[in-house]
Amino acid sequence: MPNAPLSLVDAAEALAAAGRRFHARGWVLGTSGNFSVVTTREPLRLAITASSVDKGTLTPSQILDIDESCGVHGGTGNPSAETLLHFEIIRRRGAGAVLHTHSVWSTLLSDSHGLDRGLSIEGYEMLKGLDGVRTHEHREWVPIVANDQDMPRLARVVGAVLDQHPDAHGVLLQRHGLYTWGASLTDAVRHIEILEFLFETLGRTAMYRSRGGYHGIAANS
Amino acid sequence: MPNAPLSLVDAAEALAAAGRRFHARGWVLGTSGNFSVVTTREPLRLAITASSVDKGTLTPSQILDIDESCGVHGGTGNPSAETLLHFEIIRRRGAGAVLHTHSVWSTLLSDSHGLDRGLSIEGYEMLKGLDGVRTHEHREWVPIVANDQDMPRLARVVGAVLDQHPDAHGVLLQRHGLYTWGASLTDAVRHIEILEFLFETLGRTAMYRSRGGYHGIAANS
Amino acid sequence: MPNAPLSLVDAAEALAAAGRRFHARGWVLGTSGNFSVVTTREPLRLAITASSVDKGTLTPSQILDIDESCGVHGGTGNPSAETLLHFEIIRRRGAGAVLHTHSVWSTLLSDSHGLDRGLSIEGYEMLKGLDGVRTHEHREWVPIVANDQDMPRLARVVGAVLDQHPDAHGVLLQRHGLYTWGASLTDAVRHIEILEFLFETLGRTAMYRSRGGYHGIAANS
Amino acid sequence: MPNAPLSLVDAAEALAAAGRRFHARGWVLGTSGNFSVVTTREPLRLAITASSVDKGTLTPSQILDIDESCGVHGGTGNPSAETLLHFEIIRRRGAGAVLHTHSVWSTLLSDSHGLDRGLSIEGYEMLKGLDGVRTHEHREWVPIVANDQDMPRLARVVGAVLDQHPDAHGVLLQRHGLYTWGASLTDAVRHIEILEFLFETLGRTAMYRSRGGYHGIAANS
Repeated sequence: MPNAPLSLVDAAEALAAAGRRFHARGWVLGTSGNFSVVTTREPLRLAITASSVDKGTLTPSQILDIDESCGVHGGTGNPSAETLLHFEIIRRRGAGAVLHTHSVWSTLLSDSHGLDRGLSIEGYEMLKGLDGVRTHEHREWVPIVANDQDMPRLARVVGAVLDQHPDAHGVLLQRHGLYTWGASLTDAVRHIEILEFLFETLGRTAMYRSRGGYHGIAANS
Repeated sequence: MPNAPLSLVDAAEALAAAGRRFHARGWVLGTSGNFSVVTTREPLRLAITASSVDKGTLTPSQILDIDESCGVHGGTGNPSAETLLHFEIIRRRGAGAVLHTHSVWSTLLSDSHGLDRGLSIEGYEMLKGLDGVRTHEHREWVPIVANDQDMPRLARVVGAVLDQHPDAHGVLLQRHGLYTWGASLTDAVRHIEILEFLFETLGRTAMYRSRGGYHGIAANS
Repeated sequence: MPNAPLSLVDAAEALAAAGRRFHARGWVLGTSGNFSVVTTREPLRLAITASSVDKGTLTPSQILDIDESCGVHGGTGNPSAETLLHFEIIRRRGAGAVLHTHSVWSTLLSDSHGLDRGLSIEGYEMLKGLDGVRTHEHREWVPIVANDQDMPRLARVVGAVLDQHPDAHGVLLQRHGLYTWGASLTDAVRHIEILEFLFETLGRTAMYRSRGGYHGIAANS
Repeated sequence: MPNAPLSLVDAAEALAAAGRRFHARGWVLGTSGNFSVVTTREPLRLAITASSVDKGTLTPSQILDIDESCGVHGGTGNPSAETLLHFEIIRRRGAGAVLHTHSVWSTLLSDSHGLDRGLSIEGYEMLKGLDGVRTHEHREWVPIVANDQDMPRLARVVGAVLDQHPDAHGVLLQRHGLYTWGASLTDAVRHIEILEFLFETLGRTAMYRSRGGYHGIAANS
């Protein structure tokens, strides 16, 4: 799965582009979200967004060069406490990039379906954009994990969920947002767009299908 | 119906502009969608987007120059399996351009109305932007075809549906998206915008009309 | 009410800017909509968008210089048949600019409330942006007129409705869209934004208030 | 709480950037909204948007340099009557910047929940972006105040509400919009994005949860 890692400079530019793209769609408002890319495997080093920065206007200095102990070797600011989740996903999935967004629809679905501990997405052509999926007849289970401010504990729970669902392409934190990943940043950006598209589609479809007495769709005079 | 074909360079630029436009609206997220323009008629040659590329950042090398057997004469990458649908539409409709988008609303309606094998749109001024339509009193039937990963089979089904509905300006693939076309790329872009607008309008109108006990629209204190 | 008219060149630039703004919001998709500005009063001359052009990429040559008989003195293309509505509004209201948009929400409300021949908007602070309105306690009546392809007849009907509702700031054509105007183009652009905002707010509020059994808004676990 | 104030020139540039950002999202349509930044504390001076200007295209001259008596020392135009609310918030909260937006969702919720005199937001990770909030288990109460054209009276009411709710990060004016603030303009922009995100999430979640008979979210064939 691993692709050729990006240099730190290229990673910073590519993360800023992803940030502008997601901010424009309202998926990382108010400094929410965080993004990382593996720059070297041995030793493991990440380019990761600093904590509490606006993802729509990322500058190179807001991208930190960190090691596996969260030591900062470049950039200004501190890594977010959620960096532990990034390392957990990188280790369990061999991912080259991890992206976390906070959209309205992922917040809504992760809240309303939290008791089910996940939601399934099935029968959509868009699923074929997920790594390794070859047909719309695929059934994707997106686990939902309760939110927690104790990050070492949350990282252990997410790690266990990743092991229980080895085919999952993303994880929702309840009333918090989406984590997804990919062999490369390009793959991870694609996974964000696909899963966010599918969440909006699921949410709107459930509302459309539940409408009451009037079921026609042609215009009336 | 045929217009003067575009050169390959102009076609690449125009397809990239269409890609940026549709990506901004969320209609081609996650490398979904594909676009083509006829560059010569005899022999038939297409400029078509390569498979699995981001439609929001198309570069000239991602536009393939292909012949009727899907042989690639220029550009980097492979044509999508859905190229067969493009050729089917070009042959049956004499189209100069074919566009395929994956919006939330086309996915929702093609899913919820799939059992009806189509949906009708009637009475909207916006219909007048469809080629040959002169009044809002027009009734447009948009056929819905079951999705299928067997592309030669799907192309035959789409071809038969085009013949059964000679006046249709677009076809929906169920839980997959919209195919439309035009004499020129400009016409096809206009058809995408019109049909996507009408799908959203139909979907929201059905939900608005089905609301329960409270029917007023003035604000309350 | 009349402001200093714009030169033809400045009018073309300002109309193109309005077009980009409204196209970005999805209010003039698929070549829908048309815009005009008075450039001289005596004799009356308009800068008006040519028929069937993309409002998101207007060029100076797509802005026509026309006289009161729809004679074209500059620009490429023909005036839309709806130019008659522009003249009707300019004469009855003394307007310096007329703008017509086709949004999803104006289409939806003009359809669903067509039998009432209008809709009222009351109690919103945003109403204060309409020319001459000084308090949110204002009640705005937006007349809804049946759509018609016979433009001379439709212009007469719109003219009569303008006279019946001398305080109205806009008119909806059923399943077609909004016409509004202003002393200047700046005023007319502001009126579009305000009325479109209020239509979306009315539509969403009616749906929000009609929801069924669950009425809380706090998140549940 | 106070940060180093911005110079007038830097404040004008930063307010214009905030205006473009909020206008793009449809939160300050039709000249609605107003924004201020403290430029000096002793004596108190504000950079504030002039009344009735388009917030999407703010120019330096549209940013007024005003003193505590609303005297204008620079810029073109007049301060809005709502300037009194800005001063009230600056004095009671020690804020360095005050922002006011008019979104569809804040208008909708402030209308529908006005009788409750506020709404609570609880359990969302996004709450952690509000100044001083450390956990998603925070409960934020957003007071709703009746709209009023008598600005001195409205300012007194808002002042009293701020004192009654010392932990509140924002106030809604009914059918009018949101006021929020921060130690710096960056903090205030973040608060706008967070609160607007949460309003949309609350509104959509309540509608999603109240849907009728069909509750599944998987696609059907």
